[in-house]
Amino acid sequence: PDDTAAAAARDRDAQLTKPPGALGRLEELAEWYIGWRGDPAARCNSPQILIFAGNHGVTAQGVSAFPAEVTAQMVANFRAGGAAINQLARLAGATLDIHALSLDTPTADFTTGHAMSEADYVAALATGWGAVSPEADLVVTGEMGIGNTTSAAALAAALFGGDAGSWAGRGTGVGDDGLSIKRRVVEAGVSLHGQQGPLGLLQCLGGRELAAMAGAIAGARAHRIPVILDGFICSAAAASLEQAVPGALDHTVAGHLSAEAGHGQILDALGKIPLLQLGMRLGEGSGAALAIQILRGALACHQDMATFAEAGVSDG
Amino acid sequence: PDDTAAAAARDRDAQLTKPPGALGRLEELAEWYIGWRGDPAARCNSPQILIFAGNHGVTAQGVSAFPAEVTAQMVANFRAGGAAINQLARLAGATLDIHALSLDTPTADFTTGHAMSEADYVAALATGWGAVSPEADLVVTGEMGIGNTTSAAALAAALFGGDAGSWAGRGTGVGDDGLSIKRRVVEAGVSLHGQQGPLGLLQCLGGRELAAMAGAIAGARAHRIPVILDGFICSAAAASLEQAVPGALDHTVAGHLSAEAGHGQILDALGKIPLLQLGMRLGEGSGAALAIQILRGALACHQDMATFAEAGVSDG
Repeated sequence: PDDTAAAAARDRDAQLTKPPGALGRLEELAEWYIGWRGDPAARCNSPQILIFAGNHGVTAQGVSAFPAEVTAQMVANFRAGGAAINQLARLAGATLDIHALSLDTPTADFTTGHAMSEADYVAALATGWGAVSPEADLVVTGEMGIGNTTSAAALAAALFGGDAGSWAGRGTGVGDDGLSIKRRVVEAGVSLHGQQGPLGLLQCLGGRELAAMAGAIAGARAHRIPVILDGFICSAAAASLEQAVPGALDHTVAGHLSAEAGHGQILDALGKIPLLQLGMRLGEGSGAALAIQILRGALACHQDMATFAEAGVSDG
Repeated sequence: PDDTAAAAARDRDAQLTKPPGALGRLEELAEWYIGWRGDPAARCNSPQILIFAGNHGVTAQGVSAFPAEVTAQMVANFRAGGAAINQLARLAGATLDIHALSLDTPTADFTTGHAMSEADYVAALATGWGAVSPEADLVVTGEMGIGNTTSAAALAAALFGGDAGSWAGRGTGVGDDGLSIKRRVVEAGVSLHGQQGPLGLLQCLGGRELAAMAGAIAGARAHRIPVILDGFICSAAAASLEQAVPGALDHTVAGHLSAEAGHGQILDALGKIPLLQLGMRLGEGSGAALAIQILRGALACHQDMATFAEAGVSDG
């Protein structure tokens, strides 16, 4: 970040017509955003929401409440404007770009081999990196992929340790039998690939949409575009970047705390306090898209409030 | 609320292209709003933010970090468009109405008598009731008044009991000496007026802006207009209605959890879970105004998402 711009933001904040600190996290959000944009006058006028979709070999084991065909059906729904993220993108004035990643060729079952070949993995990372518009001033990374909470749980378990099975949650609403299978699948994946480094784990246990989100987060950094992270799956993918290069997520904030088991643990480990806690667990970038409004509020106050001197208000 | 409209909202929610419950609190917000509007197609297009300003006799005792003149200065700032709430109102597409209540005549010091005469009190309640536009489809009640966290702390202490002094917080940022005075003032007020009923406490310990917020909340109910409550002062005023008539706040939600000491205790007592928790403590309706966006997101998803049948998506 640009320390001069961030310092200018702090200086301006101290002059605005409010008691010091009275806007709480809105004040730190404005400073964070301005620092990364390197512009004291920065506003968030052109947010870009990126959704990556992928399919997962492990779904054949019965880890999800929904059939794998739903990934492609939901991509069609995104393109037709019918999903939750379409409504939230419109509310936020954000562009919404959908990238379906080889849906007809699911990743390999990670309990028996690498989820992605090196070529597949690099292609997915590059799709994410290239999906970021250099003109965007904020990026939200979201996903769709039946089975991908299983992939994310295995990735988080391998990155952070602890009881592997306990990272498995209900996802879209899997029943007790499916949850038992899911736990065993996660344990088997960690057992097979757990010795990999963070970026190897993303290849072996992740999916194309997870790799693409990681690529987009890194690509946004190269353009100094701040990122709002979404829920469990996005955060697991992002965590592999942070473990590989500490500080790699400094240009990101956590948009919300998902109801999916394990998300809070990931955010704690990353030292990120979520902006929203609304019990959402949909994916699609939905929680992060809603959090765009919080950032907009922070910047509107920061850029447009009067100072004590301008307004003739006594500053205590 | 209209049970038929709320049931229609639940029925529609179950058909939308998402796993059941995956939008978390957005789903209950949409149902709550639709139930109170009595219209399954309800949207929040015309929110109205009401700010009431008043002055307080207890400020002469040194309970605030800012001089009493700041109330009138901030009213001028609201009218000129320079305060935080102006920016947040614009972001939310809300109208903003400012009502300054006899600023040149502070309430009486509640440690020696009733803060308001009966005539003053009724006039403030009526100002609030009459300020609600029947055409609004959402109301946010906010306030400005140097010294009013002292008034709200005394009111909350008298309504909810416990160690009276512990309800006093830092407000706009009072120092240790001021906080000690504030505690003694709150204790003295509760000692003098604590035997009053809830609406008597609002008269004896409140201020004109607190009474006006209570009047507006009640007036909105008469028009079936849902209300988003703001922080500590707004919630204390609202609590006097709920204690007088249980259920009187059913048409309200808590917009945010303020950083001001005591707000969480009030919300717990009211059974309200705040939509936002961002460490804000500004008043002016600012937290509630930001929460309008959450409600808007909930309604956008509810009203505009495709159903499983419309989108051709398998529902699991």
